[in-house]
Amino acid sequence: MFNFKITTKDKKTKARSGILKTPHGVIHTPAFVPVSTKGALRGLSFEDAKKYGADVFMVNTYHLFHNSRYKIIKKFGGLHKYLKINFPLMTDSGGFQVFSLGFAREHGVGKIFSFFPGETKNSGKIKESKTSKNKNLVKIYDDGVEFRDPISGTKLNLTPELSMKIQADLGADLIFTFDECTSPLSDYAYTKKSLLRTNKWAIKSLSAFEKYDKKKQALFGIVQGGEWKDLRKESARFIGSLPFFGIGIGGSLGKSKKDMRRILDFTLPLLPEEKPKHLLGIGEVEDIFNGVERGIDLFDCVIPTRLARHGTAFTHEGKMNLKNSGFLKDKNPIDKNCLCRVCKIYSRSYVSHLLREKEIYGIMLLTEHNLAFMLNLMKEIRRAIKENYFLKIKRHILSYLL
Amino acid sequence: MFNFKITTKDKKTKARSGILKTPHGVIHTPAFVPVSTKGALRGLSFEDAKKYGADVFMVNTYHLFHNSRYKIIKKFGGLHKYLKINFPLMTDSGGFQVFSLGFAREHGVGKIFSFFPGETKNSGKIKESKTSKNKNLVKIYDDGVEFRDPISGTKLNLTPELSMKIQADLGADLIFTFDECTSPLSDYAYTKKSLLRTNKWAIKSLSAFEKYDKKKQALFGIVQGGEWKDLRKESARFIGSLPFFGIGIGGSLGKSKKDMRRILDFTLPLLPEEKPKHLLGIGEVEDIFNGVERGIDLFDCVIPTRLARHGTAFTHEGKMNLKNSGFLKDKNPIDKNCLCRVCKIYSRSYVSHLLREKEIYGIMLLTEHNLAFMLNLMKEIRRAIKENYFLKIKRHILSYLL
Repeated sequence: MFNFKITTKDKKTKARSGILKTPHGVIHTPAFVPVSTKGALRGLSFEDAKKYGADVFMVNTYHLFHNSRYKIIKKFGGLHKYLKINFPLMTDSGGFQVFSLGFAREHGVGKIFSFFPGETKNSGKIKESKTSKNKNLVKIYDDGVEFRDPISGTKLNLTPELSMKIQADLGADLIFTFDECTSPLSDYAYTKKSLLRTNKWAIKSLSAFEKYDKKKQALFGIVQGGEWKDLRKESARFIGSLPFFGIGIGGSLGKSKKDMRRILDFTLPLLPEEKPKHLLGIGEVEDIFNGVERGIDLFDCVIPTRLARHGTAFTHEGKMNLKNSGFLKDKNPIDKNCLCRVCKIYSRSYVSHLLREKEIYGIMLLTEHNLAFMLNLMKEIRRAIKENYFLKIKRHILSYLL
Repeated sequence: MFNFKITTKDKKTKARSGILKTPHGVIHTPAFVPVSTKGALRGLSFEDAKKYGADVFMVNTYHLFHNSRYKIIKKFGGLHKYLKINFPLMTDSGGFQVFSLGFAREHGVGKIFSFFPGETKNSGKIKESKTSKNKNLVKIYDDGVEFRDPISGTKLNLTPELSMKIQADLGADLIFTFDECTSPLSDYAYTKKSLLRTNKWAIKSLSAFEKYDKKKQALFGIVQGGEWKDLRKESARFIGSLPFFGIGIGGSLGKSKKDMRRILDFTLPLLPEEKPKHLLGIGEVEDIFNGVERGIDLFDCVIPTRLARHGTAFTHEGKMNLKNSGFLKDKNPIDKNCLCRVCKIYSRSYVSHLLREKEIYGIMLLTEHNLAFMLNLMKEIRRAIKENYFLKIKRHILSYLL
């Protein structure tokens, strides 16, 4: 039921386009995977996102685990039946929350993105959060992780075996091993120790997955190792040697976009070429070009939808914050080069007015536009790979944006 | 360009169905007018609401006045061009905010609606707000009103003449005179004084409206007088004698549903039968039946959309709060007898899950359902009037709901 076929390889780079078949339909790669954290996009229906070319969506296991919601979803027959959709879905493993509720809080860092025009060049850099440092809510043991609920204080244990069980109950097409997503502020010694544990969890996840239906789900392993070359290489060789359907690249990719490129440069060549590769949680336009150029097939990221809620529009002129009062008189569409419904109909003025007034419909319009923008970008990239002008379109689009 | 024709009269009551023609299309009455306060429904596009049978929408003048947004909208050519819609619109006059920012705060009262099942029988009753009493932000003078912004403290003056000018700039099809919407806690002496002023403002509004294009807009006068029979009658005779296209019934309708029925009973017979009549800000299901029965043609109300944001669904079994955990396992649609998109596709469980998780898509789904419910109710009422079973359907539906 699962198959990944590379259909075209770029002649000048490692970029490739392909088709990933799942029981719920095909995914055209390179693909952007919109994140529907709790089983819904924030401001748009799955059907509407699908119309713009979204082939697959990511749901976060942790957010359906901590409230036991996965048990209800299982009784409905899984996520597809619960969400009433008939196209491919992914679930992550909960490994990202080991970071986001753990060291991300303790270190006061995160995967921070720029919110305003002019900051584009710094975006993706890890920087200290504006919020004060908070208590680490995660205890990591050899066999799994203990989460403490930020409000109730309730303790929850997640293990590789339980993550696989929950993901089997949820029934997404593509699922991930349970890992520790490391912090950019973790040192070499800690990252090495963590990698050993993550590798053991990969084996445990793979072994637990044996029990479940491989016709319905395919498992991705996850490469970790932080920003250290030897650790990333060790992880890539190890994960690459195991019988995973696909491979995710997770954890800290350093402290800048340069670090990210460097890490991908020495990691990707060690992975089996024929397997689909997913760059976890990354999805700025520049990152997508850099990833595709190095052989990445899948990207999931909250930024088009999250930035929409903050008023930031993705456009061919770069990012712009439509809450700025200057846009109130602007009769242009959000992006003159965009063919989405919002840009066909509405002015920047109207969207700006609604966003400034905290109207839900403003968020809905900008979410629709931003997702359409990203999904259209992926279409352009796939076409460019097929017609052999990937580097040209990369330079062209990034010259607008940077 | 404007015309109101009563097409059928019920044989047993004063209920009637009709067609109100405007330059942007027709309104089938009795009609429910969804409120798009700042120029958008909270969670649904105008187009989608239109598909469910919304013929006309209400925009609030005050919310486009205090921020000078109406000046920008004028530059776009008015609301229709700004919102990109080609169907009828209404604007109110700002008179409701004389109450909501004034005595409503000082008296700690409002048009409070029930939020939970079992409260239906009390809904619509005026009761003391749970929030503490706040400072009255309104000073009322003979020639107009001074509003003070709750945050900045900036002072704003609104007069009948300015309200007419703003409403002309906004360019809605149906507009209202500037009035003072009185509080249910105002006494007889105050209400009498206020009515005298409101009557003067009606003349001033009418006179100011002379300057504007009567092919594009039609003006409704507003009957006030609180809960007092002699004042309501005086107001009805006065407003009814002036050359308004239609008549709104505003202000305090007493302290219970019984009061509301009583006030409508002695007010409506004094108004010219052939003019369209709008019951301002009222729209519980029971109120709609009581209003239609007495000859009301138009209702605007925020409750289907506001309650949706609080998790309350309108159904043929009464109102239910889908945030209650009992709905998490419920595989039924929100309302088995509803034909809306949401009820065709989704379970109560999914909507409940999204609402409990504060997901925007949950609000979107419930807003769509609640509006579809109200708009479908109006279709049923119009059909019942045409086919002469209005009282039967009233009894039938209210027996479910109460």
